[in-house]
Amino acid sequence: MLTENEFIETYLKPLCRSKGSLSLSDDAAILTPSPNQDLIISKDILIAGHHFFADDRPDDIAYKALAVNLSDIAAKGATPKSVMLGIAFPNAPEPSWAKAFCRGLSDTMEQYSICLLGGDTTGTKGPLVLSITIFGEVESGKMVKRSGAQAGDHIYASGYLGDAALGYQLRKKLIDGAKLGLSDEENKSLIKRYLRPTPRSELASLLKEMATSAMDLSDGVIADLEKLSNASDIGAKINLDEMPVSKAAMKLFSSDPNLKNQCLSWGDDYEILATISPENSETFLNSTRHLGLEVTRIGECLSSENGITYLNTSGEEVSLKGQNFHHF
Amino acid sequence: MLTENEFIETYLKPLCRSKGSLSLSDDAAILTPSPNQDLIISKDILIAGHHFFADDRPDDIAYKALAVNLSDIAAKGATPKSVMLGIAFPNAPEPSWAKAFCRGLSDTMEQYSICLLGGDTTGTKGPLVLSITIFGEVESGKMVKRSGAQAGDHIYASGYLGDAALGYQLRKKLIDGAKLGLSDEENKSLIKRYLRPTPRSELASLLKEMATSAMDLSDGVIADLEKLSNASDIGAKINLDEMPVSKAAMKLFSSDPNLKNQCLSWGDDYEILATISPENSETFLNSTRHLGLEVTRIGECLSSENGITYLNTSGEEVSLKGQNFHHF
Repeated sequence: MLTENEFIETYLKPLCRSKGSLSLSDDAAILTPSPNQDLIISKDILIAGHHFFADDRPDDIAYKALAVNLSDIAAKGATPKSVMLGIAFPNAPEPSWAKAFCRGLSDTMEQYSICLLGGDTTGTKGPLVLSITIFGEVESGKMVKRSGAQAGDHIYASGYLGDAALGYQLRKKLIDGAKLGLSDEENKSLIKRYLRPTPRSELASLLKEMATSAMDLSDGVIADLEKLSNASDIGAKINLDEMPVSKAAMKLFSSDPNLKNQCLSWGDDYEILATISPENSETFLNSTRHLGLEVTRIGECLSSENGITYLNTSGEEVSLKGQNFHHF
Repeated sequence: MLTENEFIETYLKPLCRSKGSLSLSDDAAILTPSPNQDLIISKDILIAGHHFFADDRPDDIAYKALAVNLSDIAAKGATPKSVMLGIAFPNAPEPSWAKAFCRGLSDTMEQYSICLLGGDTTGTKGPLVLSITIFGEVESGKMVKRSGAQAGDHIYASGYLGDAALGYQLRKKLIDGAKLGLSDEENKSLIKRYLRPTPRSELASLLKEMATSAMDLSDGVIADLEKLSNASDIGAKINLDEMPVSKAAMKLFSSDPNLKNQCLSWGDDYEILATISPENSETFLNSTRHLGLEVTRIGECLSSENGITYLNTSGEEVSLKGQNFHHF
């Protein structure tokens, strides 16, 4: 078991390469903002048993805590720069856990070129708590908000939706992948999509140039589209059969059609939802192809009095009420 | 019971008066830094049963969560500007709790002229978690660090030390104030010092002008002085009988002398520990008197090979080993 001081000195301090972190030896960190940039700040609390499992690999836990925050910064068209990390431990950590956790932090920070600025360590009688505050930068006034979508804009989603929800259910053995026709590899890949979601950082600069609004899909497409439409004061029609789903997910949906609707109301995919004006739509799509990233047009913005409607292939409206996800 | 959406819309949103909060309707907040200022960032996680009690008044809980962070900013010589707030609820909050909690936030933010920028709400199977990230500003390069103290500097502490530790013990009925000679008012005032510590924000600009180093006393004077001496690479001698204690604390110490040493190793006072060069010492002291704030010279910095020694009135060394506070 490590003392607080050992955890900080031996494991966290080597991760602090930025001058402003003062090697974690002060009450506060110093961030000297770049001129003519806005700081884009997001904060996510992750709690064992709620956002990850206490017995997940410590490097996966560290990765996910950073990834869900990196995803917010990407959705805003900003470049991630640094993070503050808060941890509350139910028990003093074992050195092996601390080592793997900090390797997960270090690898992810290196991959996304961000640095650890500072934070707080403490104890708790409850489950492990991770609290990340992330800082990104974007040219002043250029943050992509949820509020800029206009009627007529095309609605896009990146990647595949629903994989993380299925990965969770496979991870918890709530569904049996093998019985439902998944190969071992497909099973693993869906679980990985839950454990290690990919922040779409490569999309940030395209969003900044072209998106009228954007957000990341953390609470499921139904809930998140509702938030975006409220912020932008628009309605929308979504073609459910255009929703991008992976081959593995498709297999599960064909075995159990109920799973598809569940996936729409479930978050954790951390894909990007963005609206693009019709005149930029083709350029946007071509540019994402150059990035090698799958992006799918799933619907269109309407004026707000139309509300949000979900249509099937035959153009019939599908009711998805009561499918929203709530944190408490 | 409130839904997450009701809690945010009805209770938190009215607190967001800054443009950069986007009325909590986005994934991220925008902070447009002032020119030629450094951002000073601190983060503290507070957990029910550890940093406060779940049955404390919700406005006291909100106050304390902000106060301990404001204290860090004050110790750094900076001006507090804004906060991000993360909350994890074990159960959906009652409207009365939410109302009182947000009144506590609002009153404290108004008192210290800070605004709510954004945050995160979620659920937990454990105790209530509050996570605050606070932002202050100070002229570039002017933050008061822990690392600037020099041998010969005078060591000062603000206010009275140990009150919060006694307040905690009175609050938990671990000691009986009436039996130990406290008046009802003294009893209440010590408990209040634990529940509602006062960030010494009025000291910030003096510290910025004169302190060679400073930090706030959150883990007890023994542990915190050790941190400051490590960061500054100095030793120190501390006159234990010069430690500023309140009249109420003095009464308890005279009834039970063990309480005094306990208080030195216990934090939660959120007073300021600062070092001032001998040539500035008198001006510093006079200036604090103009502020109406009690500040006491408790010792002197020595070169590092001397270590830290605690002396009694007769000049004899007192051993205080093993009295350090650990979070886990």
